Amino acid sequence: MHHPQQIFVAVIGTGGVGKCFLNQLAALSSKLSRSASAQTYVSVILLARSNKLLFSESFRSLNLSTWEKDLEQSKAPVLSLPQIAEYLAIAPAPVVLVDNTSNEAVAHAYPTFLRKGIHVITPNKKAFSSELDLWEDIQAASLSRNGGMVFHESSVGAGLPVISTLRELIDTGDEVTKIEGVFSGTMSYLFNTFAPIGAQGGSWSAAVKQAKELGFTEPDPRDDLNGLDVARKLTILGRIIGLPIASPTSFPVESLIPKDLESCGSSDEFLSKLSGYDGEMEKLKKEAEAEGKVIRYVGKIETATNQVKVGLEKFDPTHPIAALKGSANIINFYTKRYGDAAVTIQGAGAGGEVTAAGVTGDLIKILQRLK
Amino acid sequence: MHHPQQIFVAVIGTGGVGKCFLNQLAALSSKLSRSASAQTYVSVILLARSNKLLFSESFRSLNLSTWEKDLEQSKAPVLSLPQIAEYLAIAPAPVVLVDNTSNEAVAHAYPTFLRKGIHVITPNKKAFSSELDLWEDIQAASLSRNGGMVFHESSVGAGLPVISTLRELIDTGDEVTKIEGVFSGTMSYLFNTFAPIGAQGGSWSAAVKQAKELGFTEPDPRDDLNGLDVARKLTILGRIIGLPIASPTSFPVESLIPKDLESCGSSDEFLSKLSGYDGEMEKLKKEAEAEGKVIRYVGKIETATNQVKVGLEKFDPTHPIAALKGSANIINFYTKRYGDAAVTIQGAGAGGEVTAAGVTGDLIKILQRLK
Repeated sequence: MHHPQQIFVAVIGTGGVGKCFLNQLAALSSKLSRSASAQTYVSVILLARSNKLLFSESFRSLNLSTWEKDLEQSKAPVLSLPQIAEYLAIAPAPVVLVDNTSNEAVAHAYPTFLRKGIHVITPNKKAFSSELDLWEDIQAASLSRNGGMVFHESSVGAGLPVISTLRELIDTGDEVTKIEGVFSGTMSYLFNTFAPIGAQGGSWSAAVKQAKELGFTEPDPRDDLNGLDVARKLTILGRIIGLPIASPTSFPVESLIPKDLESCGSSDEFLSKLSGYDGEMEKLKKEAEAEGKVIRYVGKIETATNQVKVGLEKFDPTHPIAALKGSANIINFYTKRYGDAAVTIQGAGAGGEVTAAGVTGDLIKILQRLK
Repeated sequence: MHHPQQIFVAVIGTGGVGKCFLNQLAALSSKLSRSASAQTYVSVILLARSNKLLFSESFRSLNLSTWEKDLEQSKAPVLSLPQIAEYLAIAPAPVVLVDNTSNEAVAHAYPTFLRKGIHVITPNKKAFSSELDLWEDIQAASLSRNGGMVFHESSVGAGLPVISTLRELIDTGDEVTKIEGVFSGTMSYLFNTFAPIGAQGGSWSAAVKQAKELGFTEPDPRDDLNGLDVARKLTILGRIIGLPIASPTSFPVESLIPKDLESCGSSDEFLSKLSGYDGEMEKLKKEAEAEGKVIRYVGKIETATNQVKVGLEKFDPTHPIAALKGSANIINFYTKRYGDAAVTIQGAGAGGEVTAAGVTGDLIKILQRLK
């Protein structure tokens, strides 16, 4: 078990998460190569972003202390995804492809990589939450003879152990009866600000503006408010427990974008007009208050009825979902073995460093399985 | 990667957890042997309890549907631990020893098993929380040439992903700054009953009696109230993050057994006399109430000061530790990457099925690494 080992890594996407990942990888590599009992050499042999490519034709390690400048100055012609797969398939040691983009085209290429024995890890939700065919093709490719492994812990709850916990519950023979939680840091912040427990909160549009200023939203907040991000995460968890969810728009998803503002131009225009619709959200808040409750934006799967649903729900102030703070995520797994008391995972579910930590964790899982 | 594979399992301890584990293993084995892509044959070749032994000299699988009767009727002479190690060491495939006892002698034999390449999994806290020498010898044995792997997820929080989450935080390069939580289902139930949020609660001795009647305590409740169980769990987590904790009695542990009752005879005598000391706990509850807080029994590690501590603390009613319900455990990991917002794992941390699920999960981790 303890012979020295070489692993190659190819990284697509060098934005926020990609940069954090490369820093974590540099630290990990240096630790692994110094290990007396289990020496492992992890070498990055390819780096790609939209219009730049850097790679070693002879499979030598790129320099992780100068990669940013080297990539910027690279004159190498950009390879297509099939070309990258061809190159990685002939590497003289196992290869892990790390997709740090949120790109749909890269996601669609996973089966090609996996069938060539290339392992895939990614925080990119697209491949696992788009059409069901792609999900099934990825599973089949990974299970094919000499197929690569695929891990995507950070696609739900960033670095929090959400997917690994769910998989272990199932693998050990437990049955999941319900999954319920706050899956979006943005939605968490918005409702903890707009409808805090034991305090008044401000207007809905003020909360949205504040969240945007603090960098807690996408560049256009409508990309959070439409609920699609939460729907994609629910789709992934649902499929893991065996529900054949056709797509993230195949079940009820409540959008918080007022109908009239769906097609208005810029995000600035949207924000300036949003206060005109504060009354609607205020009414929902007051209705909940009248019942002694608060509203929260949650995702829910109930297996008895095969129901998947994303939207507003009312919660008692003592419920852990109501008591959430800041922009934290909370995920409750209800199972046959655990009965009424959920297994709860809670914490920051967004941010470059913690998202990258989930990716680095996936890489470690692959290294452990390759020993 | 996908060739059929044989794994042998030897189980010591067939009590509550042992029985649940064997049921889970039977289901897992049948699933693994039917898998088209990754056929694995998991065969139990040895079963032992204090005075009975059942094993196959020719390394054939014992019958998991009749094991209880077969073990009861076995006439095989009981083997010593070194003899069991000799037998397992010559098995013609990888062997996993499952220690479902809470026995100190079995714990002390782990280094012997590991050095023979036998993997060890267990919910038994003893080996990892007793003297530091044993902990270090186990790590050294596992890291030795061809040493076995060792997993003990269920030794803290039963089936909850506590140890795996902590290890991943560290392995990916994060730094743990604080660990704080309620690590005992018994203590959780006692304080959620004695000092509930927004209600009066009864007397301390009534809570203890009720917990015993519901089966939430050890046969002698003093084995919970002395805090040693929590101290052992803190010792394990502290050592995992690199603190050289000498023993579970080498740091402050607050016992909830009144001094005068430490040496009184039976647990019945203890329970009958306990109400005479209700005033002491009532005083602490009132002091907390005067500050608008509740008392809880927690374990805490702070790495900046290398402080480890087990005992009573006061918490705001909105703090997740105060808001805990029933007999749930809660474990908060504070780290450099996650900042002020902890990574929280919460849920049932005791019970045969969920403890066994942690053991089964460890077995799956070993199977994945042996592929």
